[in-house]
Amino acid sequence: MFFNTKSLDEALDIVRGKFHPLEEAELVPTGEARGRVLAAPIHSPLDLPGFPRATMDGYAVRARDTFGASEGDPRKLRLAGEVRTGQPPDIYPSLAPGEARAIPTGGALPPGADAVVPVEDTELLDPETVLVFSPVAPGTNVMAPDEDLQAGQKLFEKGHRLRPQDLGALLGVGITQVSVMRRVRVGIISTGEELVPPEEEPGPGRIRDINSYTLKAQLEEAGAVPKLYGIVPDEADALLAKTRAALMESDVVLLSGGSSVGTRDLTMAVLAELGEVLVHGLRIKPGKPTILGSSDGKAIVGLPGNPVSAMVACEALVIPLLQRLLGERERPRRPIVLAEMAKHVPSAKGRLDFVRVKLVSGDRCLLAEPILAQSGAISSLAEADGLVIIPAESEGLEQGERVTVELW
Amino acid sequence: MFFNTKSLDEALDIVRGKFHPLEEAELVPTGEARGRVLAAPIHSPLDLPGFPRATMDGYAVRARDTFGASEGDPRKLRLAGEVRTGQPPDIYPSLAPGEARAIPTGGALPPGADAVVPVEDTELLDPETVLVFSPVAPGTNVMAPDEDLQAGQKLFEKGHRLRPQDLGALLGVGITQVSVMRRVRVGIISTGEELVPPEEEPGPGRIRDINSYTLKAQLEEAGAVPKLYGIVPDEADALLAKTRAALMESDVVLLSGGSSVGTRDLTMAVLAELGEVLVHGLRIKPGKPTILGSSDGKAIVGLPGNPVSAMVACEALVIPLLQRLLGERERPRRPIVLAEMAKHVPSAKGRLDFVRVKLVSGDRCLLAEPILAQSGAISSLAEADGLVIIPAESEGLEQGERVTVELW
Repeated sequence: MFFNTKSLDEALDIVRGKFHPLEEAELVPTGEARGRVLAAPIHSPLDLPGFPRATMDGYAVRARDTFGASEGDPRKLRLAGEVRTGQPPDIYPSLAPGEARAIPTGGALPPGADAVVPVEDTELLDPETVLVFSPVAPGTNVMAPDEDLQAGQKLFEKGHRLRPQDLGALLGVGITQVSVMRRVRVGIISTGEELVPPEEEPGPGRIRDINSYTLKAQLEEAGAVPKLYGIVPDEADALLAKTRAALMESDVVLLSGGSSVGTRDLTMAVLAELGEVLVHGLRIKPGKPTILGSSDGKAIVGLPGNPVSAMVACEALVIPLLQRLLGERERPRRPIVLAEMAKHVPSAKGRLDFVRVKLVSGDRCLLAEPILAQSGAISSLAEADGLVIIPAESEGLEQGERVTVELW
Repeated sequence: MFFNTKSLDEALDIVRGKFHPLEEAELVPTGEARGRVLAAPIHSPLDLPGFPRATMDGYAVRARDTFGASEGDPRKLRLAGEVRTGQPPDIYPSLAPGEARAIPTGGALPPGADAVVPVEDTELLDPETVLVFSPVAPGTNVMAPDEDLQAGQKLFEKGHRLRPQDLGALLGVGITQVSVMRRVRVGIISTGEELVPPEEEPGPGRIRDINSYTLKAQLEEAGAVPKLYGIVPDEADALLAKTRAALMESDVVLLSGGSSVGTRDLTMAVLAELGEVLVHGLRIKPGKPTILGSSDGKAIVGLPGNPVSAMVACEALVIPLLQRLLGERERPRRPIVLAEMAKHVPSAKGRLDFVRVKLVSGDRCLLAEPILAQSGAISSLAEADGLVIIPAESEGLEQGERVTVELW
């Protein structure tokens, strides 16, 4: 029933060959840029910290004045005032030979000083005299003006997704807005005569639409902007019109298909009408009835109707497609935990299997219990803690086998 | 300088003992509840799918009519119409003995039928006659009305954080709004004479405030609602007034301290004035100068001034505190990858070390290069891909040692 099925790797190669990063960037305030992907590399506009900075609480000194100091033979320095954090270094006179000035961590080293003696290596003999028990070399406990960052130094590559700490680094060098890729817009259409919106009573023979909402949430989690186009019955003209409307406003359109052959055939027909079919069937389970096509450079993906299958196919194919459209660097997205399989799970060779598992405490470690419910079962959505992936070349997992579970 | 230092585990025990889940829930539309934590368990209000449902494309039959069928001796059944997906079963007459009715995956089984013969085990002899080559038992390829979910069955525990798939499961049973814990409100105050807002030129001796923004983004990522209260100079009255104001509107107040002893002492004084100091110093690195206190059941946390230290202490102590306030089930939050240490990293016994690492490709696997910059360095924020945790009982990591890297 499926022609031209592809392995997931083959399909991802097709994604990289056929689709290209969007060429639209936008400026956003750095403080609101978490999760956005940089449209250009970023370099530091300045040296940081920009002034010689104490990294310990202690005394700013001329290093040579401390040479030879020891517990038994301390150096006596004249206490010449105090640096306060946040005060510019030039409000004090230069440090003269034989002088020390109290300085807190983060304080700006006064002119003349070139090192900081930690407070624990000193003793205040009287209000005007500090004893130094240990020598310091020039530069000790001082961060040089360009030690943290040099002006022009690259901070981030294009394609980097901004994390909380990155916002701090950018704001720390005064970059208060950044050029990021605009978010990918994804249209979601649910197809199938049997579907009603969740707020309606389905009545006999019908069920509530689930995929629109799981896919929407999955895409939001990945940083895209999903838009729901509602439910379309199994009718070629209606589906074609709705898909065209969604394509106008989207970079990617997902058709989450009904589970019957009829609906799948319809999706194929719409794809053929609008453009080119690139993949017709993926060698993954669940998720086999996945279709990928392109229309004027935009991607159309026909996803299976079963909620679990649709989510797995979205994770396996659509999320990497979004990353491609953003020019994003690949990076694992999911927490994983180690566990032992609680049961044997067979797998057909040549097919990538995503086994839903529930995690339970075992004697020695976590046990991963495979969930054998059909991929249409809603209960299994709620019950599964994560997925174990069985590679295509494997024939299955033994009971007791150590596995990594990707948490969902 | 620190009295009463605690291990992280001790501090987390104190968090569990002193702070309790908020007792405020709110109703939100299910479609917008991703990432929210359930305030009460949820049970299915109904049976699902609610009707006997075909799980294959094929023919609805009375199972007994297929008994004994084989390739050489097929059963002949009279084709009595077609079930369409989404149509109620009772619009068709009951299936009479000797009859079969075409049915798509997801279709409602007509009355009288009790099994589905897959289309590949049949042949259409003429428009009115189906040959069945394989017997089916009652229930084969049929999902019973309550097979997926039974009315009253527990779907989710209280304290469960809703994932994309969970929204689907809830909407699939018609639960269009859910009772979730209200978000935790966190006030963030930056302290230190040397700080200026990022949009200002710092001038000599001063630096831009970073922690307000990294902490805000980190808390947003964790699902809390942070609010910035700006920068307070190192002055007891001002800090006390600002902390009081923040406490009025927050469940938790973070004071991100300057790096000098003076600022730390000030934070302690404010905490002692407002309530009880619970932890004064954490045996983690970076992050040692972390202070935890409580005031009228609300938590006040004094975080280190160094940006890296503040983030690590927030992750180690504040995020678990937020989970406690939500009554959330513990669950790993970060992706991890396996790598080999590129260099030896020593660690003091009795201290939990969070080593920042950069991941680079090695011959056999990923290499984790420790970043040895001071925890005040902004460049190291940007450069680090993740953290390797050295347990308190370890004296360090050997070069070539296999480690798990938590991605940040």
